[in-house]
Amino acid sequence: MAIILSINSGSSSVKVSVYKSSARSQPPQQLADAQISGLTAPPAKLAYESGSEKVKDQEVKDINSNEDACEYILNHLVKDKGLSEISSRDDITHVCHRVVHGGDYPDAHVIDEETYHHLEDLTDLAPLHNTSALAIVKACMKALPKAKNIAYFDSSFHATIPEAIRTYPIDPAVAKKNKLRKYGFHGISYAFITRSVAEYLKKPESETSIIALHLGSGASACVIKNGKSLDNSMGLTPLAGLPGATRSGDVDPSLIFHFTHDAGKPGRSSTKELHISTAEEILNKKSGWKALTGTTDFSEISSSQDPKCRLAFDILVDRIIGFIGSYYVKLEGQVDALVFAGGIGEKAALLRTRVVEKCRCLGFELDQQTNNNVIEDVVRDIGKEGTRHRTLVCQTDEQFEMARMCAVGLQSK
Amino acid sequence: MAIILSINSGSSSVKVSVYKSSARSQPPQQLADAQISGLTAPPAKLAYESGSEKVKDQEVKDINSNEDACEYILNHLVKDKGLSEISSRDDITHVCHRVVHGGDYPDAHVIDEETYHHLEDLTDLAPLHNTSALAIVKACMKALPKAKNIAYFDSSFHATIPEAIRTYPIDPAVAKKNKLRKYGFHGISYAFITRSVAEYLKKPESETSIIALHLGSGASACVIKNGKSLDNSMGLTPLAGLPGATRSGDVDPSLIFHFTHDAGKPGRSSTKELHISTAEEILNKKSGWKALTGTTDFSEISSSQDPKCRLAFDILVDRIIGFIGSYYVKLEGQVDALVFAGGIGEKAALLRTRVVEKCRCLGFELDQQTNNNVIEDVVRDIGKEGTRHRTLVCQTDEQFEMARMCAVGLQSK
Repeated sequence: MAIILSINSGSSSVKVSVYKSSARSQPPQQLADAQISGLTAPPAKLAYESGSEKVKDQEVKDINSNEDACEYILNHLVKDKGLSEISSRDDITHVCHRVVHGGDYPDAHVIDEETYHHLEDLTDLAPLHNTSALAIVKACMKALPKAKNIAYFDSSFHATIPEAIRTYPIDPAVAKKNKLRKYGFHGISYAFITRSVAEYLKKPESETSIIALHLGSGASACVIKNGKSLDNSMGLTPLAGLPGATRSGDVDPSLIFHFTHDAGKPGRSSTKELHISTAEEILNKKSGWKALTGTTDFSEISSSQDPKCRLAFDILVDRIIGFIGSYYVKLEGQVDALVFAGGIGEKAALLRTRVVEKCRCLGFELDQQTNNNVIEDVVRDIGKEGTRHRTLVCQTDEQFEMARMCAVGLQSK
Repeated sequence: MAIILSINSGSSSVKVSVYKSSARSQPPQQLADAQISGLTAPPAKLAYESGSEKVKDQEVKDINSNEDACEYILNHLVKDKGLSEISSRDDITHVCHRVVHGGDYPDAHVIDEETYHHLEDLTDLAPLHNTSALAIVKACMKALPKAKNIAYFDSSFHATIPEAIRTYPIDPAVAKKNKLRKYGFHGISYAFITRSVAEYLKKPESETSIIALHLGSGASACVIKNGKSLDNSMGLTPLAGLPGATRSGDVDPSLIFHFTHDAGKPGRSSTKELHISTAEEILNKKSGWKALTGTTDFSEISSSQDPKCRLAFDILVDRIIGFIGSYYVKLEGQVDALVFAGGIGEKAALLRTRVVEKCRCLGFELDQQTNNNVIEDVVRDIGKEGTRHRTLVCQTDEQFEMARMCAVGLQSK
């Protein structure tokens, strides 16, 4: 039996899900779920759920970093008497880490002292995104010396994006040297979505083609042709494509130089080791719908009549329908479904309505009643009966997907 | 009778077309066409054609600037005895200047000493694009004191782009102060295209909706709904959107900071008055298909089997079909025609083939024989009979469009 932790370390939170995997070809079974949030706005808060215990918004003291949060959660797991599978840290056999940028890695990567520096090199490409995950990897290697640490990359799923789509029209020598190309992200989620939608449609993944939208505080669109990523709206970094809570998404590449004369200077979060430009800080952290409306909470924006909120909402609709049209053509119309996923994609019925009504010309149409119901299944059809293409909602689960891939890896050995 | 010059001043060439406009509501009649090219690779060369004279690739000495070129052409026009309408410079009544960036100007603008500085202010937004035009405006104000100088902006046609499409998801206070929004360009050409296509389709412009592609060394896509621009692939500057001969088009907004640590530093063409970042120079002047293949000549790329050329070709096709799909949805499928225009759009039959075969799912299909013929009409239908939407080629003419708008302005007074 394997006990697998799936860790998702963000800029202000650490989430750890615990799974048990038996030798048989069953999906991993979730045992517990722990999250510490508010790391950048103390006091930090714990949410925890296992078979025997449920905690919500409990303040926790002396948590000052992602590593502290991880350490706290590990202790909590051992102390939970109802969680009999973990009586000591040594019971944890595998730790799955979500790492945003995996460079050219087409697959997950087992991390040991020797290979850790490969991951550090990648951090240059995405300092704002990889740093917190790597800190946790390091902490886990120390705290759980018997467990196997594995990095799952958001970019790996997109290794199949063809050359003409992933290549930027820039000096190829510099592009090669500095590894500048479209990578694409949210890949762990898109792997979950593709598999779940294929199962739902009762088709092999290799014959399933979808346009998928992972809409959360980070948002992206993806076109999957016969089970493989064909294009993703994110690029060299997660900045490109759709706007997010604090991210601009695509803007004229010269814009930032008219925004500030300090664009190329090191930003406040820059360190001696890692260069982060002021431009990247502004476009990643101080833009998006937070900049337009003052809130990162999209449900608040969605239900508000404030003109600023209406504008932010309409901007997101405009950019999303643009990608749907673009990806429809890239599939030459051979599409099984349009799929909404991610926190916003799964909850925002009004956003789905506005997006899909614009895409009626492509053969998508909603069943308003199903669309307005709370979605409880992993995949739910919200499309109107008899329309040319289906419209689905998928409750994506990156934590589970990592544990599943980990378990599949164990079984294949 | 008005004698109108239409001037298009580029980075290495100056083009002047001469028109006669009578009081009656006839379109302006072209009298002569002059171009001096090779300004950045001397010796400069003259091409000239009037009723009485035809010159091709004639070397001209001591031409060191766009102003020199303009002065040379003015002298040539007066000296051409066959051109009886211009016996002295005073016969020239109007000079139309193509100016790329017009900021918030929704219309053409008559330039006098007083209003000239408004145009200078705009140059901050597009130093790489407006500078040469303004130098010519200044030269003409001096050389032709009796003529009326009028600026026609590439951005004016796009003044109708709705707020949610033109707004970037960035800090609105900075956006307002620094005038940061999508403007859109190639508008003089899109005005010509919209009018010509509406005439061809025998529809009022106000009921004509098209997806238009102006493909030249600068390339853009535009969606026109009921005669008005709804979106354009270019943005704050002409850099955004499709790649061009030396322009990257859309890239991850953080890319340039991973391309060079000097991104924000002043570029080589920067002056004390005008700040041009190294980033803008690289992305505008050292990227695009020239960077990928070594040539700016797209017909060479199109006919080559060199993998670098195949890649550059495929990249352009990929980006173009993305915009067609996006714009199709923005029109909710209510589209009269897909229109190819510009030097490449009008000539590159293979590019049209590759683009349109991907868009078959939207209802576009080519008649291969018509597509392969040389296009001689202003508008030519190259679509297959019986397809859902038409596909057209339009021989756009920015010089004529400016003269026409100028003549219309005269008649309405």
